[in-house]
Amino acid sequence: MLLRREAQAFRLPMAGPDDASGLVALVEDGALDPALIVAILGKTEGNGCVNDFSRGYAVSALRAALGRWLDAAALDRIAMVMSGGTEGALSPHMLVLAARPAPPNAAPGPALALGRCVTRDLAPYEIGRPAQIALAAEGVRAAMADAGVDEPETVHFAQVKVPLLSAAQIAAGGTAAADTLKSMGLSRGAAALGVGVALGEIDEADAMAAAVGAAPLWSARASCSAGVELKGMEVVVLGMSPAWAGPLRIDHAVMADGLDTDPVRAALRRLGARFDGQLPPHEAARVRAVLAKAEAPRSGAVRGWRHTMLDDSDISATRHARAFAAGALAAQIGHAALFVSGGAEHQGPDGGGPCAILYDASDKDSQ
Amino acid sequence: MLLRREAQAFRLPMAGPDDASGLVALVEDGALDPALIVAILGKTEGNGCVNDFSRGYAVSALRAALGRWLDAAALDRIAMVMSGGTEGALSPHMLVLAARPAPPNAAPGPALALGRCVTRDLAPYEIGRPAQIALAAEGVRAAMADAGVDEPETVHFAQVKVPLLSAAQIAAGGTAAADTLKSMGLSRGAAALGVGVALGEIDEADAMAAAVGAAPLWSARASCSAGVELKGMEVVVLGMSPAWAGPLRIDHAVMADGLDTDPVRAALRRLGARFDGQLPPHEAARVRAVLAKAEAPRSGAVRGWRHTMLDDSDISATRHARAFAAGALAAQIGHAALFVSGGAEHQGPDGGGPCAILYDASDKDSQ
Amino acid sequence: MLLRREAQAFRLPMAGPDDASGLVALVEDGALDPALIVAILGKTEGNGCVNDFSRGYAVSALRAALGRWLDAAALDRIAMVMSGGTEGALSPHMLVLAARPAPPNAAPGPALALGRCVTRDLAPYEIGRPAQIALAAEGVRAAMADAGVDEPETVHFAQVKVPLLSAAQIAAGGTAAADTLKSMGLSRGAAALGVGVALGEIDEADAMAAAVGAAPLWSARASCSAGVELKGMEVVVLGMSPAWAGPLRIDHAVMADGLDTDPVRAALRRLGARFDGQLPPHEAARVRAVLAKAEAPRSGAVRGWRHTMLDDSDISATRHARAFAAGALAAQIGHAALFVSGGAEHQGPDGGGPCAILYDASDKDSQ
Amino acid sequence: MLLRREAQAFRLPMAGPDDASGLVALVEDGALDPALIVAILGKTEGNGCVNDFSRGYAVSALRAALGRWLDAAALDRIAMVMSGGTEGALSPHMLVLAARPAPPNAAPGPALALGRCVTRDLAPYEIGRPAQIALAAEGVRAAMADAGVDEPETVHFAQVKVPLLSAAQIAAGGTAAADTLKSMGLSRGAAALGVGVALGEIDEADAMAAAVGAAPLWSARASCSAGVELKGMEVVVLGMSPAWAGPLRIDHAVMADGLDTDPVRAALRRLGARFDGQLPPHEAARVRAVLAKAEAPRSGAVRGWRHTMLDDSDISATRHARAFAAGALAAQIGHAALFVSGGAEHQGPDGGGPCAILYDASDKDSQ
Ligand SMILES: [Ca+2]
Ligand SMILES: [Ca+2]
Ligand SMILES: [Ca+2]
Ligand SMILES: [Ca+2]
Repeated sequence: MLLRREAQAFRLPMAGPDDASGLVALVEDGALDPALIVAILGKTEGNGCVNDFSRGYAVSALRAALGRWLDAAALDRIAMVMSGGTEGALSPHMLVLAARPAPPNAAPGPALALGRCVTRDLAPYEIGRPAQIALAAEGVRAAMADAGVDEPETVHFAQVKVPLLSAAQIAAGGTAAADTLKSMGLSRGAAALGVGVALGEIDEADAMAAAVGAAPLWSARASCSAGVELKGMEVVVLGMSPAWAGPLRIDHAVMADGLDTDPVRAALRRLGARFDGQLPPHEAARVRAVLAKAEAPRSGAVRGWRHTMLDDSDISATRHARAFAAGALAAQIGHAALFVSGGAEHQGPDGGGPCAILYDASDKDSQ
Repeated sequence: MLLRREAQAFRLPMAGPDDASGLVALVEDGALDPALIVAILGKTEGNGCVNDFSRGYAVSALRAALGRWLDAAALDRIAMVMSGGTEGALSPHMLVLAARPAPPNAAPGPALALGRCVTRDLAPYEIGRPAQIALAAEGVRAAMADAGVDEPETVHFAQVKVPLLSAAQIAAGGTAAADTLKSMGLSRGAAALGVGVALGEIDEADAMAAAVGAAPLWSARASCSAGVELKGMEVVVLGMSPAWAGPLRIDHAVMADGLDTDPVRAALRRLGARFDGQLPPHEAARVRAVLAKAEAPRSGAVRGWRHTMLDDSDISATRHARAFAAGALAAQIGHAALFVSGGAEHQGPDGGGPCAILYDASDKDSQ
Repeated sequence: MLLRREAQAFRLPMAGPDDASGLVALVEDGALDPALIVAILGKTEGNGCVNDFSRGYAVSALRAALGRWLDAAALDRIAMVMSGGTEGALSPHMLVLAARPAPPNAAPGPALALGRCVTRDLAPYEIGRPAQIALAAEGVRAAMADAGVDEPETVHFAQVKVPLLSAAQIAAGGTAAADTLKSMGLSRGAAALGVGVALGEIDEADAMAAAVGAAPLWSARASCSAGVELKGMEVVVLGMSPAWAGPLRIDHAVMADGLDTDPVRAALRRLGARFDGQLPPHEAARVRAVLAKAEAPRSGAVRGWRHTMLDDSDISATRHARAFAAGALAAQIGHAALFVSGGAEHQGPDGGGPCAILYDASDKDSQ
Repeated sequence: MLLRREAQAFRLPMAGPDDASGLVALVEDGALDPALIVAILGKTEGNGCVNDFSRGYAVSALRAALGRWLDAAALDRIAMVMSGGTEGALSPHMLVLAARPAPPNAAPGPALALGRCVTRDLAPYEIGRPAQIALAAEGVRAAMADAGVDEPETVHFAQVKVPLLSAAQIAAGGTAAADTLKSMGLSRGAAALGVGVALGEIDEADAMAAAVGAAPLWSARASCSAGVELKGMEVVVLGMSPAWAGPLRIDHAVMADGLDTDPVRAALRRLGARFDGQLPPHEAARVRAVLAKAEAPRSGAVRGWRHTMLDDSDISATRHARAFAAGALAAQIGHAALFVSGGAEHQGPDGGGPCAILYDASDKDSQ
């Protein structure tokens, strides 16, 4: 019991991409030791596509704020995963995940376990290709080792932040994608295939031979987002482990489409939530995070009805998909401070995506 | 019993704004007598804002298609209410409402009742001002008379299509709004106040003195949308009446915000639906239409969490709000062929809006 | 001299996509015989991309308006080429081109000559591939024959309206493009290669072997635009011919990029215009049409300075490029009722495009 | 002659909003003393409207980069004016203006003179109202004093960066604007009226009584842009002064609309440029900066032809106007690294705006 760790999760509102004031207050109040931060996942209010500078701006502000306590090497060890796009009522916020030595009276596990890994940089020609798949799998395994999670089936969420190609890199030739927006999808897709390989969901040979973005292979636990502000991949793994203690639990569901909320309701019930329609406030307060992926079905229809997301030249399909799935999930949870991320290539089936839930089971454990 | 009428409701997919093929097929198959059509409500796939030509294009196509059977005067009597914007998975479709003599074996009422009215044209200076409020109230009363509904409390939905100001009209001076997008909101708001007056929800003197768009007055049953393609207002009233027969029922709820779906679930249960999470397919099949209004709260927050809809200069707030509320409602119903319309000024509270449901209670009546 | 024809060109403002009132007035005033219309080129105010319904709406309105005088077969013979997108100050307008028997006193030629052709429908799998290149070349040759123009070098402009793929067609598989927007570029590019082949600018074998959209092959006189509202290709050829009479002349330039206006100024001078900076009003009045193509350079830079058009996920690059080139050209001509069309794949060099000018040389001829 | 100053102007490309590498290189190479920087004007690649974080991100990066040499107080003295929006081929870049003691051999004046001022913060209720007009006038006078320019007629450009209202401030009530985008225009307009007062172009009493945004009063030399990242106003004044030396000159023109480039050509010629169509490269190299304002005419037309900028709900009118005017100006200058800023309320006439040019007259002076 001496070496048990306990995960902490804080959800903090952001008044703008550069607002790290909530995080600073947590540290100043003594509620969080900055040296123990494993990852910061943020929803920032850009377009979530190529020219979304809200992500880089947020990372820059976080590094400046934490720079009061941490040196550059320590900052580099924190996975900062900013996902752009707060469509609909989605609220800009960050989720700060930390790992501390479990206090003696911590609730016994199994409990939420955290691990991370930053991979080497990808060359432009590797993005969206087998080299990225292999590197992502390697990164997930390293993050599992960091978390002390050995069993792939106890991993419920693997977040991978991936790079995309710039117009200049594409113009230089040899890349898998001919435009920047397309490269975001290929990069997310390759990383998701890598997650599936590492978690035993996808056969390695199948993944390596797959047409990225088109093959019907998927992971139920991968969540990948792309941003201009990095060259390598940042992996964060969340699972359940008997080596971790405390009240936090995690489970996941797969949504077959953006309105497929019954699996999410089932996961909430497995975690211990009791509710009829929408979660009542006391249950909503236990839900520390909802991490979901959304996308427009390539089939052109949802439940047999045509959608227009892929034919809309004014608004990117990812933005439509995030807004819609956010509404579906918010209707279950009772608010929209949700981490709904777009572009779910090989993350859940076509048109759908994984959804993970962090839940505080305090007191319920003893029931 | 000789004079009983029966309402018919058909929900038809549209492959594009100019697709009237479903309607033509209904007529050719003998399922619908075009002379009995009261109203056609369409969700078309434009931006739902000023330069949304999908609405006018749809009306043009509908008139051309129905022109095979109806003359211009008969076409003019059909309220054609096109609401632009199929954000998220919202599916372009039309809802065709007709009133036929009830067959002798029709289920006894009270049942869905339909009425309509087209008002005189509004002068540019009247839009968004008391003259429009009064005219809308007059139009609702005329539509109620047309439906044979005397009691305001048995009206569950009053759809008003309103004109907006063009840049040229604004440049000419004397108008209530200084830009076209703003004029859409004022025009919707004034019409909603008029509905509230006619339905006994808002005191007439209060409405006339109200700052349109700002005053905390609202109707629980108004649904107003704006379009460039008309100069007057088209009113359609849906209620329950003992003078009507058949299996169709209507009820309504007020959503306090875009994710407030529990009142909708309660309305579904009042109509006879039985379900736990999402409607099962056999119940979803009974829901003939969902007619809802969505908007971004002016307060800047939803359930205490900041939203970014009103600060987004790339996507209009109405588009964000429709996508989000559509997700919330689709998660209840099981598909996204929903009539979710944006801009809910004085239609439900700030940030929220009314939601009406048409339900086929066949067989359930005798239970 | 008995068989000489004379081209007519009318530029008419449009108050909306469905505004054919200017055309109707021309006919009613006796200035135009509708049976002699060869082509109508329109700039309509949609986004010019996939979900631009302003094009189809305009065609629908034109057919309805001309239907007073022409039967369906006659309507089908008129090439109706609507190009969406009136960015910047570009003004929605149509250019009506007609061919009448030259009056005895018509100025002698060579003068503007017109020809047209509508090809067979393309199958989805042909779009963007050699079959489309060959069909476009065939269409140009047919249009030249229709114009009575034998020499490819006397053709100054070949407008081709091309189809694009729908999301449903792409989902069905076997197509050259994986998304609808991409299919617009491939379809335009294949048609432009076909024009180049027909006009002797591009070697046929090179064109057939070319990577459409990437190969450094281009026509100086092709102008291709895509729209959902057709399945085949509509070709209009404009040239100079001694068999035609009257005051109208045409010449063309190639802009190396969106601000390369000196070649346009040189073409204006070749046509007879006299000016220092911007055209003075009496010269601007002689310019009956400016037909130009604009696009964002794939290189990522214009004159060595980085541009952001291809990295912008809020506004399509075609919209940026049209607005910018429109400004450059309007600064030469003196107004913005210009036919600037986006997407210039194989139409002029990367980042640039052809620009043709119709000029009324009345009186100047005798100088 | 001992106290003569010399202005320096550097135009530096930016690879992204956070790219200060060009500036750092200038300092490291010894070409620029950071302590002498007066102002940095940047064109950044956001939408230029409310949620444009590229401006704040750029300021943050500039402060971090210059923080190697300057303390916070010295950084605060540099006016950092970021204008968002690089539509069309506009290139993200910054213009660094510095004032150094003139070297003994500097060309004699009059030459470009620089001055600056940062005003106190504005309260939300002051924005767009007389208090802001008066404060802007005061700021211009202070900046003139800082530049040593006494005569208002020798001021050719007064750049004012102004704050805007947030949705939260508007929700709190008492503000002049009801939405954030509208507040940008009112804030720019009030500042421009203040410039006009200070420069003797507008009568003070008229300005104070004017309906901001509507009154037909304007300055020929004001350039105002709005951003979320400041609360006060930053004023930079550029003029010609005999107390300054060196080869840099400034002059200005007023464009009556976005394509009115002949006045700009005349200003270039007054500055000494020789050219026929577009500036030849050796003349373009002398143009150190073009600072222009663009906007959509409220009249709804440009040179009698309808424009669609104000009816477009997909793209803000400011973005259309910038792209178009940028094309017009780039066609004169020969590239698009131009500081074209949107929203020209009371800056030039309705639909038009001022345009100032910095020109290096080296060698020409002695002619
Ligand atoms: Ca998926
Ligand atoms: Ca409301
Ligand atoms: Ca080209
Ligand atoms: Ca102006």
